[in-house]
Amino acid sequence: MRELQVNLRDRSYPIYIGEGILDEIASLFEKHDIRKASPLMIVTDEHVAPVYLDRITQSLMAGGYQVASYVVAAGERSKALSVLEDIIGAALDAGLDRSSAIVALGGGVVGDLAGFVAASYMRGIRFVQIPTTILAHDSSVGGKVAVNHPKAKNIIGAFHQPELVLYDTATLRTLPEREIRAGLSEMIKHGLIWDAEFTAWLDQHAEEILALEHDKLEYGLYMGCQVKAYVVSQDEKENDLRAILNLGHTIGHALEAVAGYNELLHGEAISIGMVGSAKLAVRMGRSVRIYTETKRILAKFGLPVRLPEHLDTDRIMKAMMHDKKFKEGRTVFVLPTEIGRVEINKQVPVEWVREVVEELKREA
Amino acid sequence: MRELQVNLRDRSYPIYIGEGILDEIASLFEKHDIRKASPLMIVTDEHVAPVYLDRITQSLMAGGYQVASYVVAAGERSKALSVLEDIIGAALDAGLDRSSAIVALGGGVVGDLAGFVAASYMRGIRFVQIPTTILAHDSSVGGKVAVNHPKAKNIIGAFHQPELVLYDTATLRTLPEREIRAGLSEMIKHGLIWDAEFTAWLDQHAEEILALEHDKLEYGLYMGCQVKAYVVSQDEKENDLRAILNLGHTIGHALEAVAGYNELLHGEAISIGMVGSAKLAVRMGRSVRIYTETKRILAKFGLPVRLPEHLDTDRIMKAMMHDKKFKEGRTVFVLPTEIGRVEINKQVPVEWVREVVEELKREA
Ligand SMILES: NC(=O)c1ccc[n+]([C@@H]2O[C@H](COP(=O)([O-])OP(=O)(O)OC[C@H]3O[C@@H](n4cnc5c(N)ncnc54)[C@H](O)[C@@H]3O)[C@@H](O)[C@H]2O)c1
Ligand SMILES: NC(=O)c1ccc[n+]([C@@H]2O[C@H](COP(=O)([O-])OP(=O)(O)OC[C@H]3O[C@@H](n4cnc5c(N)ncnc54)[C@H](O)[C@@H]3O)[C@@H](O)[C@H]2O)c1
Ligand SMILES: [Zn+2]
Ligand SMILES: [Zn+2]
Repeated sequence: MRELQVNLRDRSYPIYIGEGILDEIASLFEKHDIRKASPLMIVTDEHVAPVYLDRITQSLMAGGYQVASYVVAAGERSKALSVLEDIIGAALDAGLDRSSAIVALGGGVVGDLAGFVAASYMRGIRFVQIPTTILAHDSSVGGKVAVNHPKAKNIIGAFHQPELVLYDTATLRTLPEREIRAGLSEMIKHGLIWDAEFTAWLDQHAEEILALEHDKLEYGLYMGCQVKAYVVSQDEKENDLRAILNLGHTIGHALEAVAGYNELLHGEAISIGMVGSAKLAVRMGRSVRIYTETKRILAKFGLPVRLPEHLDTDRIMKAMMHDKKFKEGRTVFVLPTEIGRVEINKQVPVEWVREVVEELKREA
Repeated sequence: MRELQVNLRDRSYPIYIGEGILDEIASLFEKHDIRKASPLMIVTDEHVAPVYLDRITQSLMAGGYQVASYVVAAGERSKALSVLEDIIGAALDAGLDRSSAIVALGGGVVGDLAGFVAASYMRGIRFVQIPTTILAHDSSVGGKVAVNHPKAKNIIGAFHQPELVLYDTATLRTLPEREIRAGLSEMIKHGLIWDAEFTAWLDQHAEEILALEHDKLEYGLYMGCQVKAYVVSQDEKENDLRAILNLGHTIGHALEAVAGYNELLHGEAISIGMVGSAKLAVRMGRSVRIYTETKRILAKFGLPVRLPEHLDTDRIMKAMMHDKKFKEGRTVFVLPTEIGRVEINKQVPVEWVREVVEELKREA
């Protein structure tokens, strides 16, 4: 088992990562001030519940906890105010009070949703994350919680830090392969923005990681969380540095918006986006090696590097420029300067972005 | 114009109180870092909008602000997640960004609702309160914002402090008389829990205050805000001291729950509740003068001191004890120890509470 600390202004919290650590859930809860006198509520989704909910409920009850639970539909559409209202109704019925905790058991969807329940129920109660996807190594660090508005993603939310994060790598074995790859896309991003050595390690161990080989997986998640935690601790409320976490996301979000539901997973979209950023960096004068390496590593993990041809360039450009400020035909992008380092570049010609989108459709 | 400072851990903010200060709104906004580059949105209700919205919008626009607005139905039912979602949709359409502000123009309903919009939109943007009721001298201090759940009041919310509060006493002249009295009930509460001298002053100037005589009204609001601000600054997240603000509210909330919609306004219910607390204090051994004085002052302001006979005692008791912990027939109440001072008493016999509820129905 590995443990790392996320250091934040108000307080810090630990992330435990390891195979089978859910067996110790009750004692870890106790250690981190989760109260037994007040009921807690596990929020999870319909894919995760059948596999893990009973076991976790039993362990907690054996440890003296009162446990209620709420199961939502799987998928992004559960990140909605109407679902939040239902969960809060169930929390009231179960008697949750100001000393209770909300436990998110699942991927980023459940984490974001349950986190905003914890942030807003009685103006804020304790929160615990039990991530069960690889992508959640990203979403469980930093305290950003939110639901969607019909008009915009993640627009209604809060900053609410968990008391602890319990990352049992054993849970990842039931994850569909496509979700594994998509989650690894964010792990690779954490290498590309901050740590050349970790990127090289990922490159070297791609096969073992994809096979969920235990030691390698644990180390990868640990390092991914480390990078995210370090960046976030420097800039909790996203004023400046935290923006580097958006490598690949400007193009990626636009692709998600334009592609049909489920055509591109988030991690797949940002994989293409990271290739695009590398291409832009080369145009801005950086070494061509940045592009070839970025693309090679992503492809090695089975991630898409080519933009689906049928997605309309005009619509992509419109989605991308929608909430961007740009003057005199230039805009802001997170761009690599070398492998393991990025910059915020405010001088990217919008015309080049369009050309790169076109090029991405012809990527080999 | 009077100015007071609310001191909180993270930061403090000013409350400006005075006749006609809305004329200076644009310069006060500018002074307190409300940005002109990003649009702001005024949230108000259908009673307040026709009287004040245009004028304020014009003043702000003349000062260089971009102003959008959203008008909700008047009354408690607008404190709902569905209304929050609509406002956030409008904020997106109007282009509000992370540097924008939400401005609450109205009473406690609009303040609580718009405050939670500001707390959750993009995980928190700037917030300004322009209270237009007397009750709002209470609700605009302390940063508690919330909407209701069908099953419970104020259960979904946050702590979100405004950048500034602009309290123009001129706006109170259009307030229905019943709302004036109900708001003064909280002002009297602030005297009773903290300040014997202020209570005596209220007693002495009841008529002028009820007539909204300018100097007296301004001083009363100023003192009410002072007491609330002091208590809240000692205990921002309601752990301990802040509980004293609940004088009269245990019985009051139960009456609101049992009485039909609009039979009792909040301030009226807590007026009866404060008489009940005084009676309990006397039973616990305090001077009978506490009871006679409390009742006399409230009656002088035209506030109810007798509990409507048709409200069922069993239902009141059930509503009251619903979320209370009690052991061995005793429960917790905020009780006066003398005029201007209260205690948290954990030894109040539940049987006495029932007897007092019965007595309150026979109050002269
Ligand atoms: N808060 C943040 O900082 C942050 C960061 C990145 C992403 N996110 C959010 O995260 C969400 C995406 O997260 P995600 O990719 O984890 O999606 P997800 O939660 O929808 O999980 C993906 C799929 O895998 C299933 N699943 C989860 N764990 C499983 C397991 N162990 N076994 C079998 N199936 C399992 C889920 O039911 C779902 O169908 C998005 O809503 C995104 O906005 C948030
Ligand atoms: N956040 C807090 O700390 C806190 C504290 C106390 C109360 N509250 C909340 O405040 C709310 C009650 O506030 P309220 O009593 O101000 O109610 P309100 O906002 O509903 O206003 C009362 C009525 O007066 C009307 N009105 C408001 N200003 C007017 C004006 N200048 N002229 C004419 N009509 C006007 C309104 O339209 C409404 O019909 C409740 O929801 C309560 O939960 C919050
Ligand atoms: Zn991402
Ligand atoms: Zn009150």
